[in-house]
Amino acid sequence: MAKLQSEYSLDTSAHLRDAPLSNQSFPGSHKIYVEGDGRSHNVKVGMREIELSPTIHANGRVEFNAKLRVYDTSGPYTDPKQIMDVYAGLQPLRNDWIESRGDTTELQQSTSEYARQREQNIALEALRLHRRRLSRRAISGANVSQMHYARRGIITPEMEYVAIRENLGLSYQSLEQAKSEHHSGQSFGACIPTMITPEFVRSEIAAGRAVLPCNVNHPESEPMIIGRNFRVKVNANIGNSAVTSSIPEEVDKMIWATRWGADTLMDLSTGDNIHETREWIIRNSPVPVGTVPLYQALEKVGGIAEDLTWEIYRDTLIEQAEQGVDYFTIHAGVRLAFIPMTAKRLTGIVSRGGSIMAKWCLAHHQESFLYTHFEDICAIMKAYDVSFSLGDGLRPGSIADANDEAQFAELRTLGELTKIAWKHDVQTFIEGPGHVPMNLIRENMEEQLKHCHEAPFYTLGPLTTDIAPGYDHITSGIGAALIGWYGCAMLCYVTPKEHLGLPNKEDVKQGLITYRIAAHAADLAKGHPAAQLHDNAMSKARFEFRWQDQFNLALDPDTARAYHDETLPKEGHKAAHFCSMCGPKFCSMKISQEVRATAEDNEEALKKKAEEFRQQGGEIYLSTPGQDEVLL
Amino acid sequence: MAKLQSEYSLDTSAHLRDAPLSNQSFPGSHKIYVEGDGRSHNVKVGMREIELSPTIHANGRVEFNAKLRVYDTSGPYTDPKQIMDVYAGLQPLRNDWIESRGDTTELQQSTSEYARQREQNIALEALRLHRRRLSRRAISGANVSQMHYARRGIITPEMEYVAIRENLGLSYQSLEQAKSEHHSGQSFGACIPTMITPEFVRSEIAAGRAVLPCNVNHPESEPMIIGRNFRVKVNANIGNSAVTSSIPEEVDKMIWATRWGADTLMDLSTGDNIHETREWIIRNSPVPVGTVPLYQALEKVGGIAEDLTWEIYRDTLIEQAEQGVDYFTIHAGVRLAFIPMTAKRLTGIVSRGGSIMAKWCLAHHQESFLYTHFEDICAIMKAYDVSFSLGDGLRPGSIADANDEAQFAELRTLGELTKIAWKHDVQTFIEGPGHVPMNLIRENMEEQLKHCHEAPFYTLGPLTTDIAPGYDHITSGIGAALIGWYGCAMLCYVTPKEHLGLPNKEDVKQGLITYRIAAHAADLAKGHPAAQLHDNAMSKARFEFRWQDQFNLALDPDTARAYHDETLPKEGHKAAHFCSMCGPKFCSMKISQEVRATAEDNEEALKKKAEEFRQQGGEIYLSTPGQDEVLL
Repeated sequence: MAKLQSEYSLDTSAHLRDAPLSNQSFPGSHKIYVEGDGRSHNVKVGMREIELSPTIHANGRVEFNAKLRVYDTSGPYTDPKQIMDVYAGLQPLRNDWIESRGDTTELQQSTSEYARQREQNIALEALRLHRRRLSRRAISGANVSQMHYARRGIITPEMEYVAIRENLGLSYQSLEQAKSEHHSGQSFGACIPTMITPEFVRSEIAAGRAVLPCNVNHPESEPMIIGRNFRVKVNANIGNSAVTSSIPEEVDKMIWATRWGADTLMDLSTGDNIHETREWIIRNSPVPVGTVPLYQALEKVGGIAEDLTWEIYRDTLIEQAEQGVDYFTIHAGVRLAFIPMTAKRLTGIVSRGGSIMAKWCLAHHQESFLYTHFEDICAIMKAYDVSFSLGDGLRPGSIADANDEAQFAELRTLGELTKIAWKHDVQTFIEGPGHVPMNLIRENMEEQLKHCHEAPFYTLGPLTTDIAPGYDHITSGIGAALIGWYGCAMLCYVTPKEHLGLPNKEDVKQGLITYRIAAHAADLAKGHPAAQLHDNAMSKARFEFRWQDQFNLALDPDTARAYHDETLPKEGHKAAHFCSMCGPKFCSMKISQEVRATAEDNEEALKKKAEEFRQQGGEIYLSTPGQDEVLL
Repeated sequence: MAKLQSEYSLDTSAHLRDAPLSNQSFPGSHKIYVEGDGRSHNVKVGMREIELSPTIHANGRVEFNAKLRVYDTSGPYTDPKQIMDVYAGLQPLRNDWIESRGDTTELQQSTSEYARQREQNIALEALRLHRRRLSRRAISGANVSQMHYARRGIITPEMEYVAIRENLGLSYQSLEQAKSEHHSGQSFGACIPTMITPEFVRSEIAAGRAVLPCNVNHPESEPMIIGRNFRVKVNANIGNSAVTSSIPEEVDKMIWATRWGADTLMDLSTGDNIHETREWIIRNSPVPVGTVPLYQALEKVGGIAEDLTWEIYRDTLIEQAEQGVDYFTIHAGVRLAFIPMTAKRLTGIVSRGGSIMAKWCLAHHQESFLYTHFEDICAIMKAYDVSFSLGDGLRPGSIADANDEAQFAELRTLGELTKIAWKHDVQTFIEGPGHVPMNLIRENMEEQLKHCHEAPFYTLGPLTTDIAPGYDHITSGIGAALIGWYGCAMLCYVTPKEHLGLPNKEDVKQGLITYRIAAHAADLAKGHPAAQLHDNAMSKARFEFRWQDQFNLALDPDTARAYHDETLPKEGHKAAHFCSMCGPKFCSMKISQEVRATAEDNEEALKKKAEEFRQQGGEIYLSTPGQDEVLL
């Protein structure tokens, strides 16, 4: 339960205060902090460690099962030792690193005119956090992007953090051991080393193959990396719309999303008070936050796309960069000439940003200001280390429209823009579709790698069929797993409400679990050295009927336990050598344990054993407490 | 609501009587019956037709949208014109066809000794259906399998039925048209013709590439076909276990499963009264029913695997064949020599049938009686037209064990057995795993095609990771979509309760919807000529804001509607040109419609239009009733 330090002053505060999620660790798990070598930086990487019970063999031998470390996106919210205060925000763990670089300066006031207006508006006092902070910006002429450091050969503490995190803090020997026991995978050109070193992180960022999104104004964020030579990541979209939801609901959803595995979050708010909603989310978010600045810019012009101007948009970029947004979706590839290519589509343009820009371009019959001012945007990005997420405004919105002329014309433009961004050492990744049948997914990945020079790919699904609204987490989870395997670096989740409504907390969780499955299935298929450790721990617990361990090892321990307990609720059943699916007589796992005991020896001994087995009555599996009760 | 003709005498009858599913058509849908050419047989194929509302264009033009036909597994249960009586069972639509062939005879009593005992047991009267039927068997020396007819060049009414069903009763022209508008797909060697003819069905069955499961004792079943040159099918497992559930619950689940798209059902009951449970299920099932006869045989010997004998097993096969089971899972590939190969596995043997036979083989140190008596089994199969589902008793139960020596040794044996079955003209398909990482799935399909001579493949999932109990419909739905695309003919569903407990009705539905998604995604990816019609109808309805049509076209209309109504419940919102995800100002679909109207013309006219567009205020989308209310 969250230990809030003061009363929450917003109307729907009860919603946040009562959230049963904050500061609660996962069952059977502890938060640990793995330290770096300490030579240069004070790096401590939070991870989750799942305790496992011992195996008791038939002969009475007790086998110790090592704790399993898992990648953890939940930040301090799953560490009961931390005292949380959503009014103050999280501790800024990166502050010292940023300051010590000496290339940023604190601003006495916001550079954005709009931000200053909001900050000076007394009517908004009730919506403000208690702790104020001063924004930072690069000193004149400086470039504070991780890519800029990487290209100058500098390994930042952020890079060191990421390396430890990707390895789960394991030693080279442990990773080598893990790798040797696993399937080797098929990587489609990805090259994941056995151990991720800080130097490898640096070189991947320098090459543009990976992005470490970390705005100097979001020091609360725990560094993470997006690239196909790293673990596949998952993004969750949150944010209110004009129709529904409030600030506390969105903060609550943010914490909830990081609990269930969101590596980054996009705040897609389009309703009232989006400046303040964003401030709450960023100050409390342990993961990078992305936005689509165009949404807020459009709000500023009353929702009339044609009234958008570069000046309003530019002010919005600076406003959000100084709040700490880590990456901006910018639909700069929607060029005037491509718009007529969408006319014959079944579903036209389905990206909000894409359609807004298309409307602007047509109304003015001009090239998009995002395209014409792209280098001006780069200048802003590098002053705060905001990363580009180059938006796919012309992505297909239906199976029928997949991989068409409009989509690939835009993709090639995004590749050209990537080159420009890299000229400025601005970190860049590329957004992708959308709705694509399975057989056309690989072409998406190959075209992206080719035209975007291996910049990381970040796709929405893709949905592999259009016919199942209400289940689009699943239609798209299939596509996400596939494109993750082929090399997509980050998967933007889709919830069950896609195409139907705004997701609630349960939808956010369903979307995230589905996408964690997709990302993990992709890591396994690519042959990630440490991925199969988790599967093997689960399978061993399953074969040995360690039910508590099975629950604790599950991506969603609460649901696994609840489903089991629906039919076998008693505590004694947790030691049972069967479940309700087959009952005791038909449990293959139970019989298989007996078979193994018999078959382990060589062919000659087999016959003898078979005889013994018959004489014993053929029932040699382990007796454990509570078992008699259930076997009656 | 089911119109039951009499009171249901079982204890939990209320459960069945109150089921809100029977005889209720899907919203906006009608049952239609497409007739054959009538030259030889009285073939009427039930299908579902979804009515669509017209499109009203901005210029006032009304565009008619053709009804969409969809493949329908629900039989008479979604036809409100039918009067249902679960005590009597369904009308036996295939009776005349079977009789007219003149190669079967009615039996005055069951051939199985066990069946006779059950039938004569007065204590079981309360568990019987009201309508009794006499079983049929081939006359002496006859072979009544569809494969036998097919190989003699005979096109049966069942084959004609299947052809119409696969084509959705569409004309060659319509199918040619559909195909020309769709993605072409990637079929990995599958060859799906534009139109399925009865002769094509015959030739595929004759070649062993397809199976039409239709026991002469299950005349209630609507013919369907399993083969990679046809639509990908889905099987649902139902059945009680010793721990939970009753006959009415299982009948209810059966009806429920066919409503949500089960192409076949497996009755995996292992508890009490499995003979009677099976009778209820078969008499009321519009889809083929499969079983694992070993489960019942084991019950007959008190659960002691070593006490199983060929004689008890043989009597069980005949008992079930005379009840009407359409396919038997038979784990005849679990050979003695393969068992030690499982000793080093992480999870041993996880197939129930496989582990039972392994235990038997070890205890007797003999080759399995399923293997040694395989030709005796063939003799039984062809006397009733029961199809083989050759079980994969050594399938992997974890990612770690995928594609190992034991699994492939068994697969090659299944290939040998297929050849023997085909020698007897017995229809045969092959079961497959299980737990397989994505990168190893294709090898499964390729090895199966190679070693089993293109006999249809029927896999359980496969699960692509082990770490998400509670979500194994999703971990396995990913694998199912992939292997379906690669050529797997039927996908055995996995429910959210897999590894945890026995599925309830909601779990059955979740499993089925997930697998219908997987099967359809596979059909799309293979390039099935008519598959994309459904996606296109949905996408057009989506682009045109026809909300009612979107709900009605959804695989699960109830959930789609409920999710939409959670945030926008009013009827007026069903005509709204937005949803709650983005609200009215940010709706890309709405903006895109405006863009389309503007961009459809050529480049020269574009500038002029852009000017007009500005002058109009840039808001030219359609005004429909109820819209003003929501746009305020």
